[in-house]
Amino acid sequence: MLTGSEKEIKKAADKAGLDISSLEIKNADGIFDMETAPTEIMKSGRGTSLGVGLDALASGEGDAFVSAGSTGAVLVGGTLIVKRIKGIKRPALAAVMPSSDKPFILLDSGANAECTEKMLTQFAYLGSLYMEKIMDVPSPRVALANIGVERTKGTPLYVETYELLENDEKINFVGNIEARDIPFGRADVVVADGFTGNMIIKMYEGVAKSLTNEIKSVFMKNALSKLSYLGVKSGMDEFKEKMNYKKYGGAPLVGTRKCIIKAHGSSDAYAFKNAIGQAVKYVESGFTDIVAKSLRESKEE
Amino acid sequence: MLTGSEKEIKKAADKAGLDISSLEIKNADGIFDMETAPTEIMKSGRGTSLGVGLDALASGEGDAFVSAGSTGAVLVGGTLIVKRIKGIKRPALAAVMPSSDKPFILLDSGANAECTEKMLTQFAYLGSLYMEKIMDVPSPRVALANIGVERTKGTPLYVETYELLENDEKINFVGNIEARDIPFGRADVVVADGFTGNMIIKMYEGVAKSLTNEIKSVFMKNALSKLSYLGVKSGMDEFKEKMNYKKYGGAPLVGTRKCIIKAHGSSDAYAFKNAIGQAVKYVESGFTDIVAKSLRESKEE
Repeated sequence: MLTGSEKEIKKAADKAGLDISSLEIKNADGIFDMETAPTEIMKSGRGTSLGVGLDALASGEGDAFVSAGSTGAVLVGGTLIVKRIKGIKRPALAAVMPSSDKPFILLDSGANAECTEKMLTQFAYLGSLYMEKIMDVPSPRVALANIGVERTKGTPLYVETYELLENDEKINFVGNIEARDIPFGRADVVVADGFTGNMIIKMYEGVAKSLTNEIKSVFMKNALSKLSYLGVKSGMDEFKEKMNYKKYGGAPLVGTRKCIIKAHGSSDAYAFKNAIGQAVKYVESGFTDIVAKSLRESKEE
Repeated sequence: MLTGSEKEIKKAADKAGLDISSLEIKNADGIFDMETAPTEIMKSGRGTSLGVGLDALASGEGDAFVSAGSTGAVLVGGTLIVKRIKGIKRPALAAVMPSSDKPFILLDSGANAECTEKMLTQFAYLGSLYMEKIMDVPSPRVALANIGVERTKGTPLYVETYELLENDEKINFVGNIEARDIPFGRADVVVADGFTGNMIIKMYEGVAKSLTNEIKSVFMKNALSKLSYLGVKSGMDEFKEKMNYKKYGGAPLVGTRKCIIKAHGSSDAYAFKNAIGQAVKYVESGFTDIVAKSLRESKEE
């Protein structure tokens, strides 16, 4: 099912020579641009592709929703229209990221600037379950992003969260992880409050971009350096593919009653295809049911 | 003046063929290793090179102190032995970092995991003054590390700090900076609480190290790729030099009554020479007097 301006969707499909006659289109003429306040999704934004899509998801017309639209609006709409799983304090935005080893998940990567230790503990569980069920990692290593490995490091929030995670039998807690170890993939799940998580993901992006630019200009320097590129091209291509986050799809908003995937704003067809595949796997894994059941049980205990 | 085991210092100088007869040596036989709790600097650590050096500095036997020892002990000793400038809430550790443009300073890079908006405002002023007086940057651009550029972004601490900085006539505040823009040098001074600042600096270090390793292995792949390295060697060397943080010396602990420079634990002779040069410039600039005078004036206002 596609949501958005039916006219524009058909025009785009025609242009690309695609037959989309088997897909249902839910017309939505409203426009939700990056300048619109995220909370408008509950009011003036209801008639946009985002609003119509989230409403359709909430009312059971679909199993998952994939969007590359405004992150803030997806968060607000996901939480208020699709709603949280009972017992979940706040949904978290989880980013699947490449490392020099295997990919890992970082959550919260920006949905909640302020967190409590209970929220961080839920994020740890949600991230662990995601890596196990959707990324096929058995017994994922869960680490808490912190400024030192010792249990006494960081703010009181982090010291208390460490204690809760250590005693949580549902996860494989491996302790604190310093930011310098994050790019090496020393944990499968990295837990942080949304402010810190957002800093981590954007530093990763910024430093990688800055260094890639520098390396590029080294190769562009002169005729000899350009020629040299040919000798490392296959290795460079492998490296680029390893670091290509688009293959992992988008960032799932975990903790909502149904699957919501926030695709990167710069998603191309390849990234979208992978985000949709990720949504299929998410739904087929029974992720939300497992979370709901686990929360019911821990409440009964 | 050198502090440490006189016997060991003389042995090392002999080995290196150095004449250190013009230097005063303050003997200190105690050992402060990385496992010792930083607060021990006030007790059992007083007889170490760190303790003896900070005591000498505090009592006026020197103008500046440079050490590559335990960061925690330098922070505690700097604050409690050398003491804060009157009116300074908490000293901050400032890291001078390379960018794809000019170097910038990040503070607090780890001294205070928890901060107030008043502390962050002082850090902004101290960083700005440092860049102006010691790094020769006129009217340094001061930015607040945040998860978005809008003034409403981040935790209440960051929203309130934004407002204070905006109204601070002593600095050139350019607004929030997102982490992805930090490596591009879009600010001369980046202000953050010590938890966030530590995450930023260590992500920078980690991502740079991880990507450098990847690029290295691309060149080491086979005979052709090794040969190709020769064609980009000069460009790669320039790139390495640009990113070499050792040329900036160490991280000053700003806000103490006298100059204290924390050199990186892995400092070599080149890094130490630069840290000492940095200390000379710090002292000659009259940095601490300017700060003290400015704080007295703003109190009188």
